[in-house]
Amino acid sequence: MSEQTPTSPIASLLEEPETRRIFLRRSAFTALLAPATLTALTACQPEAGAQVKKAAAAGAASDSDYSGGAMAAHPAPPVTPAGKAEEMDRMHEAGVKAFPAATKGKGGQPLAPKMDGRVKVYELTVAKMQWETEPGKFVEAWAFNEQVPGPEIRCTQGDRVRVVVTNNLPESTCVHFHGLEVPNDQDGVPFITQPPIKPGQTYTYEFTVPNFGSHMYHSHLNAAKQTMLGMLGAFIVEPKNPRDEPKADVDYTMILNDGMHGYTLNGKGFPATEPIVVKQGQTLRVRYMNEGMMIHPMHLHGMHMTVIAKDGWMQPQPWKCDTLNIAPGERWDVLVKCNNPGTWAFHCHILPHAEGEHGMFGMVTALIVQPTVTA
Amino acid sequence: MSEQTPTSPIASLLEEPETRRIFLRRSAFTALLAPATLTALTACQPEAGAQVKKAAAAGAASDSDYSGGAMAAHPAPPVTPAGKAEEMDRMHEAGVKAFPAATKGKGGQPLAPKMDGRVKVYELTVAKMQWETEPGKFVEAWAFNEQVPGPEIRCTQGDRVRVVVTNNLPESTCVHFHGLEVPNDQDGVPFITQPPIKPGQTYTYEFTVPNFGSHMYHSHLNAAKQTMLGMLGAFIVEPKNPRDEPKADVDYTMILNDGMHGYTLNGKGFPATEPIVVKQGQTLRVRYMNEGMMIHPMHLHGMHMTVIAKDGWMQPQPWKCDTLNIAPGERWDVLVKCNNPGTWAFHCHILPHAEGEHGMFGMVTALIVQPTVTA
Amino acid sequence: MSEQTPTSPIASLLEEPETRRIFLRRSAFTALLAPATLTALTACQPEAGAQVKKAAAAGAASDSDYSGGAMAAHPAPPVTPAGKAEEMDRMHEAGVKAFPAATKGKGGQPLAPKMDGRVKVYELTVAKMQWETEPGKFVEAWAFNEQVPGPEIRCTQGDRVRVVVTNNLPESTCVHFHGLEVPNDQDGVPFITQPPIKPGQTYTYEFTVPNFGSHMYHSHLNAAKQTMLGMLGAFIVEPKNPRDEPKADVDYTMILNDGMHGYTLNGKGFPATEPIVVKQGQTLRVRYMNEGMMIHPMHLHGMHMTVIAKDGWMQPQPWKCDTLNIAPGERWDVLVKCNNPGTWAFHCHILPHAEGEHGMFGMVTALIVQPTVTA
Repeated sequence: MSEQTPTSPIASLLEEPETRRIFLRRSAFTALLAPATLTALTACQPEAGAQVKKAAAAGAASDSDYSGGAMAAHPAPPVTPAGKAEEMDRMHEAGVKAFPAATKGKGGQPLAPKMDGRVKVYELTVAKMQWETEPGKFVEAWAFNEQVPGPEIRCTQGDRVRVVVTNNLPESTCVHFHGLEVPNDQDGVPFITQPPIKPGQTYTYEFTVPNFGSHMYHSHLNAAKQTMLGMLGAFIVEPKNPRDEPKADVDYTMILNDGMHGYTLNGKGFPATEPIVVKQGQTLRVRYMNEGMMIHPMHLHGMHMTVIAKDGWMQPQPWKCDTLNIAPGERWDVLVKCNNPGTWAFHCHILPHAEGEHGMFGMVTALIVQPTVTA
Repeated sequence: MSEQTPTSPIASLLEEPETRRIFLRRSAFTALLAPATLTALTACQPEAGAQVKKAAAAGAASDSDYSGGAMAAHPAPPVTPAGKAEEMDRMHEAGVKAFPAATKGKGGQPLAPKMDGRVKVYELTVAKMQWETEPGKFVEAWAFNEQVPGPEIRCTQGDRVRVVVTNNLPESTCVHFHGLEVPNDQDGVPFITQPPIKPGQTYTYEFTVPNFGSHMYHSHLNAAKQTMLGMLGAFIVEPKNPRDEPKADVDYTMILNDGMHGYTLNGKGFPATEPIVVKQGQTLRVRYMNEGMMIHPMHLHGMHMTVIAKDGWMQPQPWKCDTLNIAPGERWDVLVKCNNPGTWAFHCHILPHAEGEHGMFGMVTALIVQPTVTA
Repeated sequence: MSEQTPTSPIASLLEEPETRRIFLRRSAFTALLAPATLTALTACQPEAGAQVKKAAAAGAASDSDYSGGAMAAHPAPPVTPAGKAEEMDRMHEAGVKAFPAATKGKGGQPLAPKMDGRVKVYELTVAKMQWETEPGKFVEAWAFNEQVPGPEIRCTQGDRVRVVVTNNLPESTCVHFHGLEVPNDQDGVPFITQPPIKPGQTYTYEFTVPNFGSHMYHSHLNAAKQTMLGMLGAFIVEPKNPRDEPKADVDYTMILNDGMHGYTLNGKGFPATEPIVVKQGQTLRVRYMNEGMMIHPMHLHGMHMTVIAKDGWMQPQPWKCDTLNIAPGERWDVLVKCNNPGTWAFHCHILPHAEGEHGMFGMVTALIVQPTVTA
């Protein structure tokens, strides 16, 4: 048995760059990160694109050899036709090899404000469109600025912001700033704080941003339908005093949904979800936001998460976990010290939201921790 | 665009009583708080009735004018018939205008004990009845003292209490004191700690109340049916030492349910739910109790909640959120510093529990923060 | 009414051993603990078997007399036929009397490693089998070493372990060590970190155990099916420094599941679930692990739980509750100071997971706190 003992990739990576390159070659995900998909990386990861391109190049000579574990053949047990098992494996492998699959449209892109004096003006137009959630699967979306999730609004506590919403839908809507403690008449609840925004109308919200953290905007009229169809987005507020939050090298927003578009992360289902790419040693911040109708306990492989905030409010003491249960309407912010190199599965642990007989789908992505070359 | 900029109602409210009155007039909810519905306010809010009456009077000349946001007409986009959008708006508005709608019966009313020496005696009789969950919707209820939830028992840690249960149902029952660390033979589990209470029988529980906090009583026999039909109530224990808990100006119990009676808060669905009315600056305590079969992440607009206790036990450090996930059997106590005036939506954020094409329903209520006149 | 006042069993138990024996006789559960079922007790409770045997002997002369509460006959109300109520009671009682019911097979048994030098070698073979979840109910299981849950692996932080997996299933599989921060190539994700283990093959994992706590191993290929069919087990890591965790007298692992096998605790449904037996004054540690697809808020009667760890990571400050919501993939560790003698219901508080018209089923067990004889 001892000749089957694998060497620890971590140990060797810390000393031997050559081994690291082999590791990269052997990593199915990084090898398959085609240049076409690199645009999927967020604006918060300026260097990630280059890193993945290097990884993709290194992996061009990918093979099906794995460094870990040793396989021993046995006489086959008296089981059902081997053909079925082979066919299942083929489908599972195809899904992994397709990741990250190119699809049309990317949600949650940063929305640059226009300035009106000191006021940051964000313009949102909502309309029906076709949205590709995974390769070839198009669904009807009611989308802000043709994105699902809608564009990410990011500003600083104390900013004066104006959000101008134009409704090109066939029904009325309203926009609620979920988590922001705005004045009542800016709260976006029809017939309570404002009249509905009727088809063809434009409505203007304006307020001084009171509290920082990971918040959201979404429809608050017929919302069980409108939000599920895509009328949602992140509204992220940086603290006025940067020391009110810990620092992170990579800042990633992950919006969960489970409505008419299927089980999605940022509007896409696996293999069209976006990998998160970091360098070994970096600190990753994930801002979870659940805009769906179900809980989603998100499980990260290989490293734990340190929970720092709930609904934009810092926890009195950070705490650790590897599976974080996120309920509809909740936001949870976590930090991950990315010290374990490799390509790590990252998925909802309600398994029927993530995998079937034909392979992984839905709420699955990967955290790719690229090893640091220290030689 | 700048002429569309709304003024902040908060800023003006702090300086200008006249503006506050306009604000109140413009608040659909407060304007519609008819005197008939004011009885819905809890005994812990002695002055709330009067406040709401004033608000209702002030709002008598309600109009459809809103202070916030500005609407600009656009050429209508090529959408489905405008008639459908108008019809939807009409239904949504009707729901809001009907709130809080009068229905027969109010659950969770304080149950005054009879004294037998030093023993506080609470009498509960359970029987079938018809219960009105929203205007015109009657459901079969198995109710304690003709209330759903059953009457609220409230006593002090260390009290000797006797609970006398008479079963007028067609099947046996038992009463479990969920969260109270009573002696085993007072725990209410049939065939383990006691014989069932058969139809027509009366059974007496008696114990010294050991631990304080937000607890419950409910059926523990065929409970998936009996509890869902209404055999549940709050059992609230004040601490022997009042300093063991923070103070609150308004103390509100909110029992969530999702069984045969639909999605309900304290036995009623929107628009028959009860608004919580506080004065600006007051501290509100909400005692969430989930007696249903599903999670309900309760979301408060406009202000955050500070979580102070779980299942009656103080959290080691309070923490903040705006959406609190409450699972079946759990109780969570939160404080809200009511410093943001207005009528705020307060609802389960599993949206299909709260809104449909025809408007809001189910697990929706409002927190009404009445502005303080400072002039 | 005063002659109906029951005496407190706790008070009398503390002074009067004779009374305790009566209490034991009157406890339906302990009285029914037949010797055949005593093997169900965990290895961590060396003396529990003897204790329960004594309890069973003491209870041999069990009667249907209860010490608590007093029953008063009333004229029967005009209800549906009493026969139905009697029949329901009969079924409920039969379920309780059958507990703990003997079934074939016990999951989660400690797996002793073979030593290869300093390496602890754990051998797991997975194959189809029939598994008895409750008396007479056999389901298809895909089980490690013919156990559901699979055998419990227990080692110490820093150990070198080797897990040798032989797949005798008709389809491929992989084993993921959920919560352990292993090197990437030992993580068990098919086509990302390793090739699948095909039918008839054996695969070897080996790593140095990095982090302590309550972890799991389970299938990560077609896992929504394979895990639900039983391919799951506890992987418990003791801390290198014992002071990193609080001490407990009894250490109990409770794995929740809700797939094709029904609602189960450690692979069995009530009345075939296993009671937890402790002595009064002992500290019980429960390691909850959810391997299902739904949340399960576990409710303990009679005593509270102090939450000490999440996913194997110590909470910064312990906190108390009596109902703990456990989501799929999560592990929560709690301590219970067992100071309230008696037989206590312990169940999921989503009531349809625990009780029906015919009595309790599924996710129900009992915590039996045996009174200490102090005379």
